[in-house]
Amino acid sequence: MKPILIKDLLTSEPDARAVTVCGWVRTKRDSKNLVFIQVNDGSCFASIQLTFDRTNPAQGADANSIEESLKNINTGTSVRAEGALVQSPASGQAVEVIITKLTVLGLCPPETYPLQKKNMSMEYLRDNAHLRARTNTFGAVFRMRSQMAMALHTFFQERGFVYISAPEITCSDAEGAGEMFQVTTLSLEKIAELGIKAGAKGMDPAKAADLVDYSKDFFGKKANLTVSGQLEAETLATALSRVYTFGPTFRAENSNTPRHLSEFWMCEPEMAFFDLFDNMDLEEEFIKYLLNWALTKCADDMQFFEKRIQPGVIAQLQHVVDTPFKRISYTDAVKELEKYNDKFEFPISWGKELQTEHERYLTEQIFKSPVMVYNYPKDVKAFYMKQNDDGKTVRAVDVLVPGLGEITGGSEREEDYDKLLKVCEERGMDMKNYQWYLDLRRFGTVPHSGFGLGFARLLRYITGMANIRDVIPYPRAPKLADF
Amino acid sequence: MKPILIKDLLTSEPDARAVTVCGWVRTKRDSKNLVFIQVNDGSCFASIQLTFDRTNPAQGADANSIEESLKNINTGTSVRAEGALVQSPASGQAVEVIITKLTVLGLCPPETYPLQKKNMSMEYLRDNAHLRARTNTFGAVFRMRSQMAMALHTFFQERGFVYISAPEITCSDAEGAGEMFQVTTLSLEKIAELGIKAGAKGMDPAKAADLVDYSKDFFGKKANLTVSGQLEAETLATALSRVYTFGPTFRAENSNTPRHLSEFWMCEPEMAFFDLFDNMDLEEEFIKYLLNWALTKCADDMQFFEKRIQPGVIAQLQHVVDTPFKRISYTDAVKELEKYNDKFEFPISWGKELQTEHERYLTEQIFKSPVMVYNYPKDVKAFYMKQNDDGKTVRAVDVLVPGLGEITGGSEREEDYDKLLKVCEERGMDMKNYQWYLDLRRFGTVPHSGFGLGFARLLRYITGMANIRDVIPYPRAPKLADF
Repeated sequence: MKPILIKDLLTSEPDARAVTVCGWVRTKRDSKNLVFIQVNDGSCFASIQLTFDRTNPAQGADANSIEESLKNINTGTSVRAEGALVQSPASGQAVEVIITKLTVLGLCPPETYPLQKKNMSMEYLRDNAHLRARTNTFGAVFRMRSQMAMALHTFFQERGFVYISAPEITCSDAEGAGEMFQVTTLSLEKIAELGIKAGAKGMDPAKAADLVDYSKDFFGKKANLTVSGQLEAETLATALSRVYTFGPTFRAENSNTPRHLSEFWMCEPEMAFFDLFDNMDLEEEFIKYLLNWALTKCADDMQFFEKRIQPGVIAQLQHVVDTPFKRISYTDAVKELEKYNDKFEFPISWGKELQTEHERYLTEQIFKSPVMVYNYPKDVKAFYMKQNDDGKTVRAVDVLVPGLGEITGGSEREEDYDKLLKVCEERGMDMKNYQWYLDLRRFGTVPHSGFGLGFARLLRYITGMANIRDVIPYPRAPKLADF
Repeated sequence: MKPILIKDLLTSEPDARAVTVCGWVRTKRDSKNLVFIQVNDGSCFASIQLTFDRTNPAQGADANSIEESLKNINTGTSVRAEGALVQSPASGQAVEVIITKLTVLGLCPPETYPLQKKNMSMEYLRDNAHLRARTNTFGAVFRMRSQMAMALHTFFQERGFVYISAPEITCSDAEGAGEMFQVTTLSLEKIAELGIKAGAKGMDPAKAADLVDYSKDFFGKKANLTVSGQLEAETLATALSRVYTFGPTFRAENSNTPRHLSEFWMCEPEMAFFDLFDNMDLEEEFIKYLLNWALTKCADDMQFFEKRIQPGVIAQLQHVVDTPFKRISYTDAVKELEKYNDKFEFPISWGKELQTEHERYLTEQIFKSPVMVYNYPKDVKAFYMKQNDDGKTVRAVDVLVPGLGEITGGSEREEDYDKLLKVCEERGMDMKNYQWYLDLRRFGTVPHSGFGLGFARLLRYITGMANIRDVIPYPRAPKLADF
C-alpha cells in the first residue's frame, strides 16, 4: 500500500497517470463547484494539491464517497487519495492530482487539535514537540538536520575518514570541560535508607561517602556521560589515520539559555599527520562544504528560512562559502580588538579568552569575513593542546563566522610524552585515568590534530532559528526532559 | 605536511613520482643489502612497502640519515618517508616506494609495546583497546563499522528518509524493554549524609524515598538513558513520513555474555503508510543492501574475515543477498518446529516466544534461507504492536538469518486509539507518560510500521567476530567501562 512520496510526485511528469497520495491535510478550500485540498507528507516543503470538480468529476470518480470524506476533512486529517497526476493550472505548482477516490485515514478534531491555533509561539510548539514536525517550520528544520548529517558523513567518507563511535558512558574524568551527569544503577532510595539506618546507630555524617559503594554499581566504579569523544578519537586516529565521531555528548551545566543544550550531537574529526594548518585547511573546506550543501540541495527549505525565520540568512551563508577564511594569530587579533575596547562589555587584553562579542566583532566588523584565530594563550585552553616554542601559546584554532561567532574549535594535539605529562601534573590531573591517553605518546607517537563541531549550533546558524532547543526534536535542558 | 593515504597510494599508477608516506611500521626486514619496511596507516587493510637498496640507493637519497633512522625502527614505530612510487617486483603488491628520506616520528620501544607479543588473545587486546585498532583484525572491524554506517545512511537517504535524533535521556517509562540506567546530578554521597542525619533524629527507614528529592535533580524528575528511540521516531514519521534513527541506546541488564552490550547503537526506521508487508519488503531490501555493500565495497577486509576470523562468512552473506526471504506466520513456523521438538532444549508450542535455537533451526535447517516470521502471539510482544482481528496475534515480524538468528525485528504499530489505550490499561502502564504517544492516534492517525537493527549484532554477523565487545571501539558491559 505504500505511496509515492510527495516530493517525488512534485517532480514527476504530469502525464495523467494514476497515483496514490498519502499525507496530512494542510488546508481545504471548498467553493461551490471546486474543492482544493493541500496535502503534505513532510518529505518536502511543498504540499500537493488534490482537486475535485463537482461539475466535472474525473472519470471513474465516486463522487458520493468523495463528498462523504470531504465532510470529515480538516487541517491535520490524514488522507489517502487516488487520482491522475496532471499539470496544474494554478500558479506556484507544476502538478496536481485530479482525484477519483478519497479516503480519510484518521480524523483530526479541530476543537482539540493542538496545531489548529493561529500564530503559535515557539514555546507553545515546544510544549507540543510530538506534533510540531507537522508545521512548515519544524518540517524544514528537521529535514535540514538530516541533510546536514548526510553532508557531514559524505564529506568525511569521500576523504578516507573512518566513522567511529566514541563511548557515551565513561569513567574517565574528562578535562573539566563542564559538569557531568552521573550514570548509575545504584538505588538512591536505598542509599537514603542505608543512611537512616546508619544514622540511627550513630554514624558520623562526615563518613557518608562510605555508604555509597561504587564497587556495586553497574560498572564497578563511578560512571558519567561523556562530554567529548576526542580523547578516544585520538586513539583511533593514531591507528586508522583519519577518523570522525558523530554522536551525542552531554553537559550538566545549569544554563537556561537559547544557546545551550544538555544533550547535543557533536562531530569530532581527528587526523594523524595533520598539523594545525592542515587542520585549518580541513575546517575551512568542511564548513564551506556543509553550507554549500544546504544552499544547493535544500533550496526550498532555505527559501522558507529566508522568508520566515531570518531574512538575510542565505546571503550570510553564501558569503561564508565564497570568502577565503582570514587567518590571524590570537596575539594579532587581540591587537586589533584592543582598538575597539570602548565598544565591549568586557575589554580584551592578551591572556583573556575571547568572548562572543569579541569574536563577532572580529568577523563581522573588522574583517567582514570568516576568521580563524590561532595560537591561543595556553592558560585559556585545554591540557591536550600542542605547546608552541614560545612557552606561552598553544596550537589551538577557533573558527568564527559572521552572525554566530565560533562555529568550530580545534587544535594540534601535544604528541610529546614529557610535555604532555608535565602539563597534566601542573593542572593537578589524576594521571591514573590517563595512562591509555599517554600511551599514544609512548608508542609510535605522531603529530595529529582535530576539531569539534556542535551540530545544533551549525543548524541554528543555517536555519536562523533563535533558540537551539528548536533544532533538535526533543531538547534536553535544565528541568526539560519531556517526551 | 599531510600525506596521501596509503589506500590511495596503493591504487595509484607507479609512475615514479615523488610521494610521502606516513604510518606505523608493521615489519622491517633488513638483509645485507636490501631493507624492506611494511608501513600501515589504517586507511586500508594492506600496508605499503618501503624499499632501500644499500648497493643502489635512489638518486638523492641520504643514505647515512636513512641508516640512522633504521636503527630506531621497530614494529609500531611511526615514520614519515619520501620516495618514488614504482611498480613492485614482489608478488602481492602492485606498487612500492623507493625511499630517499626516512624520518622516525615516534619511537616504539619493543620491550614495553603492548602489541609486540605473538598470538595476542582477544581478551588481551580488549585490555589494550586504546591500541588494538592498530592490529589487522581491529583495523578491519572498525573500517567495516564505518562502511556499514555509511551504507545505512545511504540506503535511507536514497529512499527519501529523514535522519532524526531520538533523545538519549528520557523520563518516559519505556515499555519494560529492559533495566535502565539512571541519569542524575544529585549527589549520592549527599543523600547518604541526609540519611545519616535523619536517622540520628529517628526517621523511619521506610520513608527513605522522602529524602530523594527529584525536583532538585537536573531535569526536575527522575531521568534514565533510553532503551529505544522508537516511540519518538513514530512522532516524526507521522509528520515526515519516513524517518530513521541511528544512535546509542542502553540496557542496564546484568548480562555478561558475548552477545550483550550495555551501550550499543541501534537503527530504527519508522514509516507512515507502511503496513506489515511493506515493512517486510523494506527489511529484506535493507539487509541485502548492507551485506552486498560489505561484500562488494570492503572486499579486502572481508577476505581477512574469511581467512582469519570465520571461514565461510563470505558465502553465508552472499547466500542472504541472493536468496528471497521466506515468509511464514508464527503459527505455521511453530507447526514446523514442533516436528523437531526432541532436538530443542526448550520444546516449542504455540504461545511461547521463539528462542535462538528455534530461530536458527528454522533458518538453517528447515528452510535453509533467511526467514521472516510474522504475526506473533500478542502476549510475547510489545504493547504498541497492531492487533490482528483474530484477537490473539499482533503484526510483528522477526527476520532470521543463517548463522545468527534474529537480525532485525519490527511491527506494524497500533494506530487505533481505543485499541491502544485498552492494551496499555491491560498491561497496567502509567498512562500519564504516554499522552503524547496516544495523541498520534487522536490527530490524523495513520497506519505505520518500523523495525530495529542492532548495529553491533549486524557487525558481528558480517565480520564473524565471536564477541560483540570486539565490534565497537570501547565496549560497555557489567563492570566494564574502561577508557
